[in-house]
Amino acid sequence: MPDTRLDIIAIGNAIVDVIAQADEAFIAAEGIAKGSMRLIDTETATSLYGRMAPGIEASGGSAANTVAGAAALGARCGFIGQVAKDQLGEVFAHDVRALGVDFDTPAREGEPPTARCLILVTPDGQRTMNTFLGASQFLPPQAIDADRIASAAILYLEGYLWDPEEPRAAMRAAIDIAKKAGRKVAFTLSDAFCIERHRDDFNSMIANGDIDILFANEAEILSLNQTGDFDAAVAATAGRVECLVVTRSEKGAIAIQQGERCAVPAEPIDHVVDTTGAGDLFAAGFLVGRAHGRSLADSLTMGAVAAAEVISHYGARPVADLRALVAKRLG
Amino acid sequence: MPDTRLDIIAIGNAIVDVIAQADEAFIAAEGIAKGSMRLIDTETATSLYGRMAPGIEASGGSAANTVAGAAALGARCGFIGQVAKDQLGEVFAHDVRALGVDFDTPAREGEPPTARCLILVTPDGQRTMNTFLGASQFLPPQAIDADRIASAAILYLEGYLWDPEEPRAAMRAAIDIAKKAGRKVAFTLSDAFCIERHRDDFNSMIANGDIDILFANEAEILSLNQTGDFDAAVAATAGRVECLVVTRSEKGAIAIQQGERCAVPAEPIDHVVDTTGAGDLFAAGFLVGRAHGRSLADSLTMGAVAAAEVISHYGARPVADLRALVAKRLG
Repeated sequence: MPDTRLDIIAIGNAIVDVIAQADEAFIAAEGIAKGSMRLIDTETATSLYGRMAPGIEASGGSAANTVAGAAALGARCGFIGQVAKDQLGEVFAHDVRALGVDFDTPAREGEPPTARCLILVTPDGQRTMNTFLGASQFLPPQAIDADRIASAAILYLEGYLWDPEEPRAAMRAAIDIAKKAGRKVAFTLSDAFCIERHRDDFNSMIANGDIDILFANEAEILSLNQTGDFDAAVAATAGRVECLVVTRSEKGAIAIQQGERCAVPAEPIDHVVDTTGAGDLFAAGFLVGRAHGRSLADSLTMGAVAAAEVISHYGARPVADLRALVAKRLG
Repeated sequence: MPDTRLDIIAIGNAIVDVIAQADEAFIAAEGIAKGSMRLIDTETATSLYGRMAPGIEASGGSAANTVAGAAALGARCGFIGQVAKDQLGEVFAHDVRALGVDFDTPAREGEPPTARCLILVTPDGQRTMNTFLGASQFLPPQAIDADRIASAAILYLEGYLWDPEEPRAAMRAAIDIAKKAGRKVAFTLSDAFCIERHRDDFNSMIANGDIDILFANEAEILSLNQTGDFDAAVAATAGRVECLVVTRSEKGAIAIQQGERCAVPAEPIDHVVDTTGAGDLFAAGFLVGRAHGRSLADSLTMGAVAAAEVISHYGARPVADLRALVAKRLG
């Protein structure tokens, strides 16, 4: 493979998270499926925010969290996503650029504002996400920089971006560019409800050979295969992609790459504060491990280390020095 | 004293904090006095933010942090401060109202934007603050609701608000109202550099009997008295106010009220993450203790408990249940 300018280029929703504590009763009263991501409109966003506890704001977005983590681990990364020209858009752009991630999608003028995700964190550390997509849903096709995508080793995409129409088209174009350039496409299934909305699309991309590396959690791999049988779901999907990675929360994670199967336990952690970003950071660790020529097992462990860091505090981006944590764990 | 609608009404800068990690070398290279608060203009704010690490955003402002903590401890509180009509202004208003604090200062249209404080947190947990005052410096006299101030048991003011001209005038008016209504005025000296700028004003307020309860840390009480002798500084000031509270970081805190002297140790804490808000939350705990009829010693301990909580995580507002922490400590 020729030299690549970037290790990973990601396309995703450009979101600022608003993270607040909530009790189980609040989630139940709102009628939200705990642990899921739902899309909300302006009215619901305003009304829900009004009822939420005080929050903290932190850059988020699934694929953006992944490149933030990957950059923190030393990978050369780029991100494509749409913010509005407003204060939260500035926050998003600053935070991703401050990690050395290439991000130059121009901010969009006028309404709607930058996307935000109202995240309710229950005492068990579980996060329930309410996403107002705002400007993010208007990612235009011209934001897809063909040269940059063709020059990145891996194109990383989030399933969440299938919801809005414009980004979906942009991502399809990006997959074509990456494939023609002989690059790998990595994809995260994002959320079981998101799969409900786009199962046919996701399955046909897999069938087309569009996806080389597929990330899923337990609920997602079951939903994709419409089964309750985990082993059957994994076996069915593993035969359809070059590399399948399935995260299983406290049960660790598995990867199956061209017949090689590998499992690692979860990294020990004192107290789960906020699970937001766990899957995103797992993907970051795994992809950087592979990019740096590590074994499948070590790459999974890098994912587990990065995920353990991010769930030990509020917010979906790493706070501790991930490289030091990996060096301590794997040398 | 007649029934009061509020336990505490505070006037302060309405600020959103932008908190990022920084190493000692970064602080040194920027030429900032570590541990201090400095005022910065738009240009410096933009340029410094561009060099800062990724951040998290959280509502701040010294007096606002104090009422947030006091409300979390069960006090009835109000806040007066100026935000702009922008996203950060919405964040500030939401966060303080979500705690049940009365806040109805109308957001200001147009430029400048809501105040932000760029906070650099070094590995030792020390915070260095760079404040862009923005809209906050345009708090108009009509924001001072005389009835509300007259009906609150304590008027709480931050020294930081002496920097901008309009709020300074508003605060002087507020003191007059509170005094005429027979209320107590509590004042925090805020920062040694702030005292450098306003020592004569602060001393003349004390001489006038405008301040009943005075909060200071070691550096501030020394600066106010222009001495290096801590005991002399405390003795000199204690004779001039009804109640003097001096916080001493890991050495605990002392209070001297009408001749009664009391000292408490700092609460034990595993790891100091970010000292932002330590003094603000100490004041919250102390004032609520006194409002609830606790002894001087128990009120100091409440301050120490609240301060210990806020320095154990990033951000200047409490995350844990302060009431539960106090109940566990004092019953």
